Amino acid sequence: MTAKIRPMTQTDKPAIMKMLSATPEFKPAEVVVAEEVIDSCLNTYQSGYHILVAEVEPLVVGYICYGLAPLTEGTWDIYWLAVAGEKQSRGVGSALTAFAEGEIKKAGGRLAIVETSSKPEYEKTRRFYHRHGYEVVGRLPDFYAPGDDKLVFQKRLI
Amino acid sequence: MTAKIRPMTQTDKPAIMKMLSATPEFKPAEVVVAEEVIDSCLNTYQSGYHILVAEVEPLVVGYICYGLAPLTEGTWDIYWLAVAGEKQSRGVGSALTAFAEGEIKKAGGRLAIVETSSKPEYEKTRRFYHRHGYEVVGRLPDFYAPGDDKLVFQKRLI
Repeated sequence: MTAKIRPMTQTDKPAIMKMLSATPEFKPAEVVVAEEVIDSCLNTYQSGYHILVAEVEPLVVGYICYGLAPLTEGTWDIYWLAVAGEKQSRGVGSALTAFAEGEIKKAGGRLAIVETSSKPEYEKTRRFYHRHGYEVVGRLPDFYAPGDDKLVFQKRLI
Repeated sequence: MTAKIRPMTQTDKPAIMKMLSATPEFKPAEVVVAEEVIDSCLNTYQSGYHILVAEVEPLVVGYICYGLAPLTEGTWDIYWLAVAGEKQSRGVGSALTAFAEGEIKKAGGRLAIVETSSKPEYEKTRRFYHRHGYEVVGRLPDFYAPGDDKLVFQKRLI
């Protein structure tokens, strides 16, 4: 399956929201924040957020959201990555990640950072980032909630 | 020297800005962001930011800015802490930190997080947090810039 990667537009929003709501890894409060960021990206000039979608015509099947980490020289955060359940494990997430990393490098980025949970439900997420060259550089015990650590993954892009 | 700790008001802003600009640990871009956060706190209902000042009448001699880390259960970030140069090493920073930690606990907070740089200029900052019960739980290599790691300190409040 070859997906086309392109910047998000206003008309993509319903498909992205549907996908986020249907993704069990995202809690309702996280979907609310993801929507605020999507709106900020769509409606604000230079919001600092960048969002790409993966399209397998006529459907949007994935999205990635990233941005320069404030007050850093060339460190970028990947905030959200989602692929529609029925389209997972077919390279869409890899294509989105590779495209975003390329854009980050073009913008002078050196490092990409991803934060995720230590809980068993995020094992697939952690394996995905390990496989794509991300290393754990921090583990913040009980950060999200008691028993739910934050893992910080980092990849050097140059 | 006993400082009175109280919430920031609009009239404190010039003193805080002067203090921030005179603090060598804060880069100009960081002072800009600190000011945006101060304005957000002063002008926005429920900005999510909390700012306290330390006053030794008639002067504001320190400030601390903190807030609930988004999408966490009871984890709070301490974003900024500053004490006027000539008033340092007299317990003002400790008083601000203790007061903020108390407020965080009252709000149900479990953890306080502080992020700072690995560079030699921040040795005093790192010692301050070590002395106040904060432990390093993450070190993100080259996060702020090449050769400038991010250290993440954490303290359990309950």
